[in-house]
Amino acid sequence: MIIDCHGHYTTAPQQLQDYRDAQIAHFEDPSKPAPELKHISDDEIRESIEKNQLRALKERGCDMTIFSPKASAMAHHIGDEAVSKTWTRINNDLIKRVTDLFPDNFFGVCQLPQSVGVPVKNSVEELERCVNELGMVGCNLNPDPSGGHWNGPPLTDKAWYPFFEKLVELDVPAMIHVSGSCNPNFHHTGAHYINGDTTAFMQFLEGDLFSDFPDLRLIIPHGGGAVPYHWGRYRGLADMMKKPALSEHIMKNVYFDTCVYHQPGIDLLFEVIDVENILFASEMFGAVKGIDPTTGHYFDDTKRYVEALDIPAADKQKVYEGNTRRVFPRLDEALKARGL
Amino acid sequence: MIIDCHGHYTTAPQQLQDYRDAQIAHFEDPSKPAPELKHISDDEIRESIEKNQLRALKERGCDMTIFSPKASAMAHHIGDEAVSKTWTRINNDLIKRVTDLFPDNFFGVCQLPQSVGVPVKNSVEELERCVNELGMVGCNLNPDPSGGHWNGPPLTDKAWYPFFEKLVELDVPAMIHVSGSCNPNFHHTGAHYINGDTTAFMQFLEGDLFSDFPDLRLIIPHGGGAVPYHWGRYRGLADMMKKPALSEHIMKNVYFDTCVYHQPGIDLLFEVIDVENILFASEMFGAVKGIDPTTGHYFDDTKRYVEALDIPAADKQKVYEGNTRRVFPRLDEALKARGL
Repeated sequence: MIIDCHGHYTTAPQQLQDYRDAQIAHFEDPSKPAPELKHISDDEIRESIEKNQLRALKERGCDMTIFSPKASAMAHHIGDEAVSKTWTRINNDLIKRVTDLFPDNFFGVCQLPQSVGVPVKNSVEELERCVNELGMVGCNLNPDPSGGHWNGPPLTDKAWYPFFEKLVELDVPAMIHVSGSCNPNFHHTGAHYINGDTTAFMQFLEGDLFSDFPDLRLIIPHGGGAVPYHWGRYRGLADMMKKPALSEHIMKNVYFDTCVYHQPGIDLLFEVIDVENILFASEMFGAVKGIDPTTGHYFDDTKRYVEALDIPAADKQKVYEGNTRRVFPRLDEALKARGL
Repeated sequence: MIIDCHGHYTTAPQQLQDYRDAQIAHFEDPSKPAPELKHISDDEIRESIEKNQLRALKERGCDMTIFSPKASAMAHHIGDEAVSKTWTRINNDLIKRVTDLFPDNFFGVCQLPQSVGVPVKNSVEELERCVNELGMVGCNLNPDPSGGHWNGPPLTDKAWYPFFEKLVELDVPAMIHVSGSCNPNFHHTGAHYINGDTTAFMQFLEGDLFSDFPDLRLIIPHGGGAVPYHWGRYRGLADMMKKPALSEHIMKNVYFDTCVYHQPGIDLLFEVIDVENILFASEMFGAVKGIDPTTGHYFDDTKRYVEALDIPAADKQKVYEGNTRRVFPRLDEALKARGL
């Protein structure tokens, strides 16, 4: 079985974006009409998935995707907490409809109603709703709700602890995933995403989060940002900062996905990172949608890169399935209930 | 000849830091004594270099270092423009003394008197002084003088143009190098440096800077941040954004150094980046000062990694010398004048 642990609903019907546009317009000028989500039919959802993610999933020989709302559209820096809450619920409810329509191919991961200056513990309620009522298996946690201004506390700050406690209690992982950037210095998918990944890892290195939360599981997407490429730097920094080895200090709790869009990058990832810490993913459809002229294949068809690795089949199976079922126990449980 | 294009004077005599401490104290509370730089003797400078950078340079079989003030200590976010100017001149004058004492082994690159909210064109005067009067061959340009708040304009903004014009006129390159971080989200050498590199590259990708400055040469240090690891992502983003291929759009003007502290990272760098765009460097002594327990050698002894590459000797020579002389024509000229 091949599970893609990182896919986004970037192809939702137009009514979703129309709602968001109206919501923002109303927030900025309350004299404008209150936003209203126009009905989205099951057929519209089916079409948006069948023609896109499900088609590509099948073409590429994968079985299922752990699916979440479009990451750049979470935009926790827009509006206020109430705006974020409403927008988040709508997105999560839509993911639930996708997973109900395609139960064999999609499992849900939720967005959170984070908002600038609002304690992340206020996101616990929506996490519980999504996990306990909507059957979701994890969440995307934004380490920078400001959208590129990074004016909140680092992930190792006690302010995040109530949320981490809930993740452990519910036994679900979080993917550390920034959203859109409102800072003109940072292109979202080309700088902010990758910087967010690198930043989160270094925060874990500086801190001691996993001593406090030995059962917490966090995924750093996009192949761990810059971290595997600079693995020597991080090993050396841990040494200079008198921290335990990275294998002990961080890598019992942190996983990198395979959203790296060329063979040499995937080769490096598997060369330096223990196979137990790698989860298969494509980010489909995410940052890069085109075809690589040097290969003739889609940049984000990351299965091709993994297939090309000269590693044992058992290791590939860990990356495709085993590790992901271990990191997402609620997914594992659901699959087992189906005899899978 | 082996030239290390990226070294910092991180071992300056204590008087320098004492001055800085007093300068900051006086800025914060003008009733405190005005700062005064205590005399630093030639012998003190000799000792600080001979025991450290020069020793390691010789032990590692290198010939010279392009040398600049300690990057994290530039700290353009501290004080105001006057504070930055004074601090910068003191640091640059000290580099000049190093290069006068060790003319065979050190060439100077200057720090700039950038300051938050101050136009970078105000740094032109110090650049001219350092190049024309102190014989320096380049500069370190901070893309984020705020120290991790990124509240200035991106490098492609017209605000930077007067400075780029001067770089072209003087025919010197700039290394795009952030300084210390005052944002608790970003560890300086583990997150802010690498993020700064990645961010700068993506700004160049989004913009069209090198159409306006076809002769501008910029170095992105630390192996180009996350860029080579995610080279497929950047090629794909250029394609999606209807930009020319990276080889045309960016890589005629941008160079990556070899400050990547493990063999797999250096292997990847040379696999994906054209050898013409790679400059040998160690950042000595910079982010990571220890010994890698897996190799028994210093993490930052990057020559070992380059030596281990299975590439033609002529390519190594480009990285060690040829490219660097091309990117730093004033260095090349000075070496030629000595018959080198």
